[in-house]
Amino acid sequence: MKELNDRIMKDGRSLGNGIIKMDRFLNHQIDPKLMMMAAQELVNRFAENKRINKILTVEASGIAPAILIGYLMKLPVVFCKKAHPSTMSDFYSAKVHSFTKQNETHIIVAKDYLTPKDHVLFIDDVLAFGCSGTGIVDLCNQAGATIEGMGFLVEKSFEGGRHALEQKGVTRIESLAIIESLDNNKIKIKATS
Amino acid sequence: MKELNDRIMKDGRSLGNGIIKMDRFLNHQIDPKLMMMAAQELVNRFAENKRINKILTVEASGIAPAILIGYLMKLPVVFCKKAHPSTMSDFYSAKVHSFTKQNETHIIVAKDYLTPKDHVLFIDDVLAFGCSGTGIVDLCNQAGATIEGMGFLVEKSFEGGRHALEQKGVTRIESLAIIESLDNNKIKIKATS
Repeated sequence: MKELNDRIMKDGRSLGNGIIKMDRFLNHQIDPKLMMMAAQELVNRFAENKRINKILTVEASGIAPAILIGYLMKLPVVFCKKAHPSTMSDFYSAKVHSFTKQNETHIIVAKDYLTPKDHVLFIDDVLAFGCSGTGIVDLCNQAGATIEGMGFLVEKSFEGGRHALEQKGVTRIESLAIIESLDNNKIKIKATS
Repeated sequence: MKELNDRIMKDGRSLGNGIIKMDRFLNHQIDPKLMMMAAQELVNRFAENKRINKILTVEASGIAPAILIGYLMKLPVVFCKKAHPSTMSDFYSAKVHSFTKQNETHIIVAKDYLTPKDHVLFIDDVLAFGCSGTGIVDLCNQAGATIEGMGFLVEKSFEGGRHALEQKGVTRIESLAIIESLDNNKIKIKATS
């Protein structure tokens, strides 16, 4: 998506070690107009799949695109939690490794909100190593829910997340901006087709 | 707001000790249509204040209403973080007490995104004891930013958060649904004026 590519080139900052800071528009400060354009584009890419009946995401940065996509598609949005709320008794849990933070966390979803009837579109801001997505596959397998696809605003293709998710059986993955390399702190984005 | 009051009565569950579970529509599974109606109503209530130039919220449940309000008001949205990202070097931090979790956490915002030029509308899903709001006042004081008002979807008026925020100097607080009591596990909502 040209507008997103342009914004990454303008406001993204490569910090070395494959890390790109996009906190001016994506995951700390958010530009709602850009986020709505991205949401609309992801809706368009999955529009032909009429089975999708739920949007799934993970707190926190996934919530903004997910709620806009849920609004546009008229579907409920469920965000998986990273901590176990004291009021939640019956839930599925999956381990997620974070390469950035070098730790293991868990993502959690109440059994009430992920069931065999669900045909899920998973939405997140960034696809890197695919760790969150892999955790989502695990949760959906536990619940008997079907993953119809996954949509990301930004993919760091050099970190291999797409392959990791395909290995887990995800057949449809869409990313709006694909960063091919951050070598020498230079942001290289795949040309929009 | 009648639609929100009705939904709380239909899907809210009082668990005792002043706790109400609203995870079917508000803060785990989200109904985007209801959330957009609530966002529009909060926008209407603050429409006369033309100084507001930024929407501030706290991860995670505040993000959904905040992004919709930012979209409708054409303003940037900043969500304060509850953990310190390794990529963030220069930030303000404020202590927040959680009565539900019985612990102290910190909320964090990068100095780049909260400045003396900012006239802030703080948005969150629930006003209970006012702990997050008090932390936001602290962050804004550190940054020299001005709080123009605070808007919540649900207020538990029996927990006194409104008074706590007024004591901190917040002059304009709006809540769309006001729960007056959860005594005997019965949800009592203030009649819509």
